[in-house]
Amino acid sequence: METLKTINDHRSIRKYKSDPISDDILNQILEAGCRASTTGNMQVYSIIVTKDEEKKKMLWECHFKQNMVLQAPVIFTFCADFNRFNLWCRQRDAEPGYDNFLSFMTAAIDALLAAQNVALAAESKGLGICYLGTTTYNAEKIIEILDCPKGVVPVTTIVAGYPDECPELTDRLPLAAVVHNETYQPYSREKIDELYNEKEALPLTKNLIIENQVENLAQIFTQKRYTKKDNTYFSKCYLAAIQKQGFMNNEE
Amino acid sequence: METLKTINDHRSIRKYKSDPISDDILNQILEAGCRASTTGNMQVYSIIVTKDEEKKKMLWECHFKQNMVLQAPVIFTFCADFNRFNLWCRQRDAEPGYDNFLSFMTAAIDALLAAQNVALAAESKGLGICYLGTTTYNAEKIIEILDCPKGVVPVTTIVAGYPDECPELTDRLPLAAVVHNETYQPYSREKIDELYNEKEALPLTKNLIIENQVENLAQIFTQKRYTKKDNTYFSKCYLAAIQKQGFMNNEE
Repeated sequence: METLKTINDHRSIRKYKSDPISDDILNQILEAGCRASTTGNMQVYSIIVTKDEEKKKMLWECHFKQNMVLQAPVIFTFCADFNRFNLWCRQRDAEPGYDNFLSFMTAAIDALLAAQNVALAAESKGLGICYLGTTTYNAEKIIEILDCPKGVVPVTTIVAGYPDECPELTDRLPLAAVVHNETYQPYSREKIDELYNEKEALPLTKNLIIENQVENLAQIFTQKRYTKKDNTYFSKCYLAAIQKQGFMNNEE
Repeated sequence: METLKTINDHRSIRKYKSDPISDDILNQILEAGCRASTTGNMQVYSIIVTKDEEKKKMLWECHFKQNMVLQAPVIFTFCADFNRFNLWCRQRDAEPGYDNFLSFMTAAIDALLAAQNVALAAESKGLGICYLGTTTYNAEKIIEILDCPKGVVPVTTIVAGYPDECPELTDRLPLAAVVHNETYQPYSREKIDELYNEKEALPLTKNLIIENQVENLAQIFTQKRYTKKDNTYFSKCYLAAIQKQGFMNNEE
């Protein structure tokens, strides 16, 4: 499929057929992941491909028991990974200095660019995908389930399979909301109202507000979906995971 | 261009023609960026598009004065951005709880998935791109140059323009180095040797070793390119930037 069409046709798929993904297609998708840019060509990330039903069930529990995690035949967990690189360095009499936060970010960036290549490659092959933001919430449990050694931190997850639904394209804010010319352009009150106007007027939004018994869409985010309480709790969990995996030695 | 071809043909371009990118193409690229998955459809990222020569020169200094930053007609700085979302929440009587590390990661992930869409969209239109890892090194200066308010942290940068070189595809480790089946598979000493063997045998590698006056490729990374000293220094800088921009209030 043409690149822009693949990109512009993306919708997250949350219902999957049970059809497996062939090894040939899986391989093409993973090879595509490996062509993404990586800092200094260090390739400091890993992709863990889980198909086993027992393992999937354990991951499903980490991902808030969303049905699609069980339905989709394959789960890709993308990890920031300096373990392999560090092992190589040590075998070559080179002392690695990658046990710090910058190295975590470098590795997380590698993992995320590879993830988006995997997502688009999968979609170009007729598969559907969905990202799981819950990876950063429950990283410590995922580390345990997937046997991740020190130097490895899960950053994001994609489930993939043949779609059993064809949802509408998701609404987006106007391009002007996200793009700034030359430097960051501050938003006036009027500008914010204008940029969110269309989104707030959607029938989908109106239904969500009734369902959630709140006054407006913003309150669904702050009071229901992404609360301060959850965010602070999971912040501590994720920072603990980063530290435990050996990425917080920031002193020379 | 066909999606897998675009993905598999990627090479980082470090020499650019002075030809500008038309507004139409720039727009298509940015629209493609906005189609990437985003947590809860919050779109908590911004893309700052810099073309002005003076501003570019200032950014070039942040990016270790790499020539391509001046040559390329457009610089895209991708930022984790909760500022816009927080403003909207506050205007809707919804108290945002997004001043914590998890929210930074959520926003950074949004920014990076959008970045890879922009990269591939640009390449599919015949442009060349190069990621700049220096964004996390000098985030505080970039924040100043680009007037980023609280809630906004630069995560990565892409320069783009028409290529004035056609480098070979970059070598990659065998797929088996990066991909793990079911769970993370530990690497034996022999496995590490085997996986890095091809890379170490490249003429490019041999030349780099002579040039850098070290014993092997791993030492180029640990002693020259990505030293512990630099990494710890920039870790502190980036954590300071994240804190200063308001993403480290991890207590309820």
